[in-house]
Amino acid sequence: MHLRSTPLPEDVQAVRRMATETGFFRPDEVDVAVELVEEHLAKGTDSGYYFHFAVDPERPETHEPVYDPPLGYVCFGPTPCTIGSFDLYWIVVDKASQGNGLGLQLMHQAEQSARTMGGRRMYVETSGKELYRPTQRFYEKAGYSVAARLPDFYDLGDDKIIYQKNL
Amino acid sequence: MHLRSTPLPEDVQAVRRMATETGFFRPDEVDVAVELVEEHLAKGTDSGYYFHFAVDPERPETHEPVYDPPLGYVCFGPTPCTIGSFDLYWIVVDKASQGNGLGLQLMHQAEQSARTMGGRRMYVETSGKELYRPTQRFYEKAGYSVAARLPDFYDLGDDKIIYQKNL
Repeated sequence: MHLRSTPLPEDVQAVRRMATETGFFRPDEVDVAVELVEEHLAKGTDSGYYFHFAVDPERPETHEPVYDPPLGYVCFGPTPCTIGSFDLYWIVVDKASQGNGLGLQLMHQAEQSARTMGGRRMYVETSGKELYRPTQRFYEKAGYSVAARLPDFYDLGDDKIIYQKNL
Repeated sequence: MHLRSTPLPEDVQAVRRMATETGFFRPDEVDVAVELVEEHLAKGTDSGYYFHFAVDPERPETHEPVYDPPLGYVCFGPTPCTIGSFDLYWIVVDKASQGNGLGLQLMHQAEQSARTMGGRRMYVETSGKELYRPTQRFYEKAGYSVAARLPDFYDLGDDKIIYQKNL
């Protein structure tokens, strides 16, 4: 996996496409994913949002500067008003690239970067609904444990699970 | 208590002063409180931040439009990507006006407004440290119960308590 950590203007559409195509996110959730990219494009790391984009290592080299569309990405950053806590805001793997361990690698990279920045804990939140069992299993496989569960947080019958991992 | 629900440019400094003078918040936390007022001034309710400012009902009426400095304020809003959840972001009562039940009245107003906007639950977060026992007791008196506790969230030895109230 090759990584690109600086968002490019083209990533706005790439993130919108990838997040939409997973079928997991509502349009208003996709909008939030896109907004975080736009925030970084406008303010850099002052936005508080950090990224790693996985790009195709097999792509032939060229002398022309070309946009490398990502196969997946992770967005994370220090939790405001905390010392040592980080949030994993988004992790998306393109439908065509799922099942190859790319998600776990992106997760690992985000944790590594957080550690470098003084992170001691990474938090990630997801829905407790049955539809999200694969997501829940993914976090458990990545070493996360349930720190809290808030009943009916997202909607009636849709709990929030807060996962936590010590870095 | 009289309420003003539209932030004015003068509130930026008033909020900075009140939050600082309580002695409860670090400078970076005060900055966040101020930013939420600025966000509303820039974007209105599109910011997602709603306010009630308590103003002095005893103040003599005048024909001149004058700025009424608040005695306290509450900032709240719908939790993004949820249906029916609200966050109470800030509640501050000016040092000189504390102990008169103003905080509970502001709390009640925020809950009432959230209910009007379809809110079913209000969440508020605070530190688990001993210093925050008065804050914790305040939320408990206002009908909030502990939904979760995240160890070392704010810093080593500084847990986050998430309080919740059904509206």
